Amino acid sequence: MDKVRVIEIKKSVFEDNDRDADRLRAELKSKGVFLLNVMSAPGSGKTTTLIRTINALKSKLGIAVMEADIDSDVDAVKIAQATGVKSVQLHTGGMCHLDAEMTRQGLDGLDLREVDLAILENVGNLVCPAEFDTGASANCMILSVPEGHDKPLKYPLMFTVCDLVLINKTDVMPYFDFDLEKCKEYIAMRNKNAEVIPVCAKTGEGIDKFADWIVRKVSAQKAL
Amino acid sequence: MDKVRVIEIKKSVFEDNDRDADRLRAELKSKGVFLLNVMSAPGSGKTTTLIRTINALKSKLGIAVMEADIDSDVDAVKIAQATGVKSVQLHTGGMCHLDAEMTRQGLDGLDLREVDLAILENVGNLVCPAEFDTGASANCMILSVPEGHDKPLKYPLMFTVCDLVLINKTDVMPYFDFDLEKCKEYIAMRNKNAEVIPVCAKTGEGIDKFADWIVRKVSAQKAL
Repeated sequence: MDKVRVIEIKKSVFEDNDRDADRLRAELKSKGVFLLNVMSAPGSGKTTTLIRTINALKSKLGIAVMEADIDSDVDAVKIAQATGVKSVQLHTGGMCHLDAEMTRQGLDGLDLREVDLAILENVGNLVCPAEFDTGASANCMILSVPEGHDKPLKYPLMFTVCDLVLINKTDVMPYFDFDLEKCKEYIAMRNKNAEVIPVCAKTGEGIDKFADWIVRKVSAQKAL
Repeated sequence: MDKVRVIEIKKSVFEDNDRDADRLRAELKSKGVFLLNVMSAPGSGKTTTLIRTINALKSKLGIAVMEADIDSDVDAVKIAQATGVKSVQLHTGGMCHLDAEMTRQGLDGLDLREVDLAILENVGNLVCPAEFDTGASANCMILSVPEGHDKPLKYPLMFTVCDLVLINKTDVMPYFDFDLEKCKEYIAMRNKNAEVIPVCAKTGEGIDKFADWIVRKVSAQKAL
């Protein structure tokens, strides 16, 4: 399975993205689908983290993945090969983010029957994706240790809109000046409700906690 | 010197950014100022690299720095304290890039007399800044080892518009699966004229080569 479907995303025609996002969220909820929007800077380890997490969850949940990228099909192929779950590649055609209508185009390319959890891997960018509600049930962002603990100071909106922050690449903590407690403090300044889970996608450390968090959220939405 | 001027950048009113950028480039050239636009993803080490490089160059060139950030004054203060050169902080007010008119607002906040080299540290983002000509004499981007060697495949325009790519954080190469030769190959696919210099801002490795590159470019512009 080294070929995945590629969807060329068109620019949205909707003017009111917030309303469209609320509509999409309600539709997905009625179908029993929990949409998780995963954001981060380039190279923070989104795809590797997702592969580990999907493999930990796929016996419990029906999962489908949308990989957004400006160009290239690298990530969707990787996900499909490493996990076997349904995966589509979304080409944003140079666009720096996804909004609700663009997310809907991706979802339309997936068969959502028997899917409990749809994951959107957003474009690697700490600025623009934070500005657009995708219709997701929850937002998660990955900050990797080499990027530094000051990022919540510099990209405030990203940390404000996220329900969960994963601190990835904890294995290289000894080689970088990364202060985890200070980072948690800066995150809380932006969003005191944001949960923080340190993980290492390479070694698997903390992935069980991320998987548990997802299961809890998916169950909570189904119970509503 | 722990206070630096902060400029709140306003949205541009010019419709034709390319023409405006050409105009700014010509104006700067006539004043003997070389403008270097430095771009990268968040956390790739732009500020640390600039501090090292400015300290290596400040006896040879008159230097001024503009630090663009969505929020926070962390970087301009750092630069001013560590190098003593003129530094201003540009707040983009949530905007994900700078264009020529926004760059001009920053330059207006600097005294350019006796300045040979003005450096613009752009917003940390591999997507949007690549789309807007700032009027710079040259574009440089920093890719750090932890981000991975596949980034030229995923952010093609950024590598297409850059004259120079610095590969930073070479000291942590042993802890990451980073293939330097493959990375150079991918960069060449996007832009066969782009030069590549591996550096380590932490240890100073390669900074002399980057400084030499800048001196060559500044001299070449003055000689034209």
